[in-house]
Amino acid sequence: MASPETSHAARYPAGAAAFPHRDLIALSGLPPHELLFLLDEAEQWVDFNRGAAKHANALAGLTIINAFFENSTRTLLSFEIAGKRLGADVVNMHAAQSSVKKGETLIDTALTLNAMRADAIVIRHAASGAVGLIAGKVDCPVLNAGDGSHEHPTQGLLDALTIRHWLRIKGREEFNGLRVTICGDVLHSRVARSNIAALTALGAQVRVCAPPALMPAQIEALGAEPFADFDAALDCAEVVMMLRLQQERMQGQFIPSPREYRHLYGLTLKRLARAEPDALVMHPGPMNRGVEIDSQVADLAGRSAITRQVELGVAIRMACLEVLTRRQRGVAGWS
Amino acid sequence: MASPETSHAARYPAGAAAFPHRDLIALSGLPPHELLFLLDEAEQWVDFNRGAAKHANALAGLTIINAFFENSTRTLLSFEIAGKRLGADVVNMHAAQSSVKKGETLIDTALTLNAMRADAIVIRHAASGAVGLIAGKVDCPVLNAGDGSHEHPTQGLLDALTIRHWLRIKGREEFNGLRVTICGDVLHSRVARSNIAALTALGAQVRVCAPPALMPAQIEALGAEPFADFDAALDCAEVVMMLRLQQERMQGQFIPSPREYRHLYGLTLKRLARAEPDALVMHPGPMNRGVEIDSQVADLAGRSAITRQVELGVAIRMACLEVLTRRQRGVAGWS
Amino acid sequence: MASPETSHAARYPAGAAAFPHRDLIALSGLPPHELLFLLDEAEQWVDFNRGAAKHANALAGLTIINAFFENSTRTLLSFEIAGKRLGADVVNMHAAQSSVKKGETLIDTALTLNAMRADAIVIRHAASGAVGLIAGKVDCPVLNAGDGSHEHPTQGLLDALTIRHWLRIKGREEFNGLRVTICGDVLHSRVARSNIAALTALGAQVRVCAPPALMPAQIEALGAEPFADFDAALDCAEVVMMLRLQQERMQGQFIPSPREYRHLYGLTLKRLARAEPDALVMHPGPMNRGVEIDSQVADLAGRSAITRQVELGVAIRMACLEVLTRRQRGVAGWS
Repeated sequence: MASPETSHAARYPAGAAAFPHRDLIALSGLPPHELLFLLDEAEQWVDFNRGAAKHANALAGLTIINAFFENSTRTLLSFEIAGKRLGADVVNMHAAQSSVKKGETLIDTALTLNAMRADAIVIRHAASGAVGLIAGKVDCPVLNAGDGSHEHPTQGLLDALTIRHWLRIKGREEFNGLRVTICGDVLHSRVARSNIAALTALGAQVRVCAPPALMPAQIEALGAEPFADFDAALDCAEVVMMLRLQQERMQGQFIPSPREYRHLYGLTLKRLARAEPDALVMHPGPMNRGVEIDSQVADLAGRSAITRQVELGVAIRMACLEVLTRRQRGVAGWS
Repeated sequence: MASPETSHAARYPAGAAAFPHRDLIALSGLPPHELLFLLDEAEQWVDFNRGAAKHANALAGLTIINAFFENSTRTLLSFEIAGKRLGADVVNMHAAQSSVKKGETLIDTALTLNAMRADAIVIRHAASGAVGLIAGKVDCPVLNAGDGSHEHPTQGLLDALTIRHWLRIKGREEFNGLRVTICGDVLHSRVARSNIAALTALGAQVRVCAPPALMPAQIEALGAEPFADFDAALDCAEVVMMLRLQQERMQGQFIPSPREYRHLYGLTLKRLARAEPDALVMHPGPMNRGVEIDSQVADLAGRSAITRQVELGVAIRMACLEVLTRRQRGVAGWS
Repeated sequence: MASPETSHAARYPAGAAAFPHRDLIALSGLPPHELLFLLDEAEQWVDFNRGAAKHANALAGLTIINAFFENSTRTLLSFEIAGKRLGADVVNMHAAQSSVKKGETLIDTALTLNAMRADAIVIRHAASGAVGLIAGKVDCPVLNAGDGSHEHPTQGLLDALTIRHWLRIKGREEFNGLRVTICGDVLHSRVARSNIAALTALGAQVRVCAPPALMPAQIEALGAEPFADFDAALDCAEVVMMLRLQQERMQGQFIPSPREYRHLYGLTLKRLARAEPDALVMHPGPMNRGVEIDSQVADLAGRSAITRQVELGVAIRMACLEVLTRRQRGVAGWS
């Protein structure tokens, strides 16, 4: 693999100044060159993962703990595969088995993981802010794998990488001016928040569309333009990113019914026609087919990036784990 | 290790023609030489696992995902150990944590695993046919670890290997004419179906015995001879294979009671006496001692092959994983 | 790493005579030099774990099965990390997925793990004596990770190691005469039992304090001095070890209420003042802060050893796994 320093030398500060953070808790506040640095780092792992043999020794000797206080399949699998392919010793802590159930405080659990001399801790938690709280108590890099409705930074990065791959196929390099429409339960979505942070920082124009009860107040402060009407939000969109509708919100106070939701906010073929002719379709998964997205759209060859997002997710997580552990591994320029 | 090609050259077509399938979904339909090829390949792993150091690098760099949509301890452990001993990066996806619970379709879950660039996916699922369905959607080898009441091919192979080890101790090489009696809930048993397929293909005479409500219609079409009376089915049997009685079927419509079941279909010492004097006793586990099999029989030294079956199961799974990934690994003659 | 034989040559019998047991089921009955041997072996792993790269190949090629029939987070994680850092292939068997739920007997489960050619089995079980029972049925070393209210030997060892680290900081080498007070639900505590066994063997004076209903009869027979009054038990104590109060015992027959429990048996700052001025504070975790221990005490810098206990736990488990597998690995003097 070519050294990232040589290929990126022109774009970033040298060494650790390229990403001068111990943790990855949020994308909000990161300057564009730090986001681009992580995206560029991920490219080598995209290629690596497509090869026949995909096991590196970059993180050999390190211990990574995936501490998931909230159930997850995809994200846990993605981080576990990322850590193992990098050669680390990877262990998972599932909430269901956890001391948390025995009344232990979150901080005590974090101190326990830290005392076992983890070299990186990947955390998912149902409470917004919980991952940042833990990061303040431990000695190693912490990666946020989703905390409540706050952020899911590796999802934001993988979505940006997916969009960039598509832009490059079309001969474009820059996010500048790109029209992205995000639709769904924006209020509770950490995916939306991380995407808005990354995409606006990179220069995209982000529109968000949500049912009135699921649109956060002051969304403009995040740099996104709110729309109540999905058709209007889709007008001229180049990227359409649908959010998962959590089942517990499919009826009752927020949404009259899944059927009604689909009628107003579901991405159908007909509605997609309002976007640009070749607009990219994205969804973080798992999908509720026939609710927020129709199968005809989800399976559109050459337009739907949904499985590509999953693929690039592993590469992004490898990049984040590799970059954040450089200090401990004594990588030149990073210690 | 000696190259399998040299030792088996006379018996099989060269290279990938020895096992020209990407997946292992069922034993039904496989010709004898393909079954024998897998059994022969497993022998080296039997020896390997009995050694002090048992970690190979054959599958180094590959990622294996064990996707278990139905709970299992033994089979999952067996596949996990097999994959790790072969040097692969192994990750488990448990149904209980799965997106399946969030309403995702099975196909979407499969596409997700595929997008993570798995090199082999091992799948257990409660629905007959589900594993074959997934195999049609992914790019890598799929191994069926049990799908509904359809097949459990690695169990069928390990049972055949166990029987062959026992035949060889007795100086016999061939399955031809071997009298095997399978007794239990044949209707719902994927173990029975895979065993009937393999053993009849290899030339054995397979008798099946089940309560009337648990005997599949047209069992003769599979090549097995049905018996209603267990004593008659045992007459001159050389191998007696008992099936596990699922607890949910221990009372009600199928079976009057476990006690009654034992009376009619349980393998007792007395009943075993109807078989050949040295007949082999098998059970796929986990056993309901005192229901389908008595402890005196299960623990018969030199006759009961039950723990041997478990041991050979790891070797069979190593063989299947190693053979099915040869194409990707660029093994000469297989790419 | 220096060979343990050279550094410890004077203290122990040579080779396997230093620890002539296949299993580690209990600390009770082990002579002092065997306990000290394990503690001394652990020291190298303490240092190892504090380094940047912490993956050894000592156990490469071996398969370790962690069979946890009772839920646990910390102990399972600690053993899993220990095994992986030593280079073994490590697999976990969780009770919740287990055949045990399908009615299989414990012995059959053990025979299954054994048949998979495990090189060491680590077992936690809710029933006292279950681990010893399994050990009698398998061919490989068995490590007790806690069995009912019997023993938790690696916890006893890690606690002894933690105390010894603290003694050495104070310039002391010996446990002789050390005043240790253990307080809590002694009746149900395997932690207390293993600590009493190890600490009394090493020469410490162990006092135990418990509510009357939670004090075992004939505790003196174990070599510990019983106290009903916590204040009296703390008088001049050099080490104060608090036990976790299990939530299911927080109300009802044993304890009037958590509040009342704290009033009589909780370690508060005020109560700690009755011990020696620099007394060490220990707790096996997970803690019920505000019940058996106040946060002001648990977080006392330089006095609380609680996270240190967790750290040394990994080193102790590495030492136990490494020592117990020497025979199989053909280590000189051990085969």
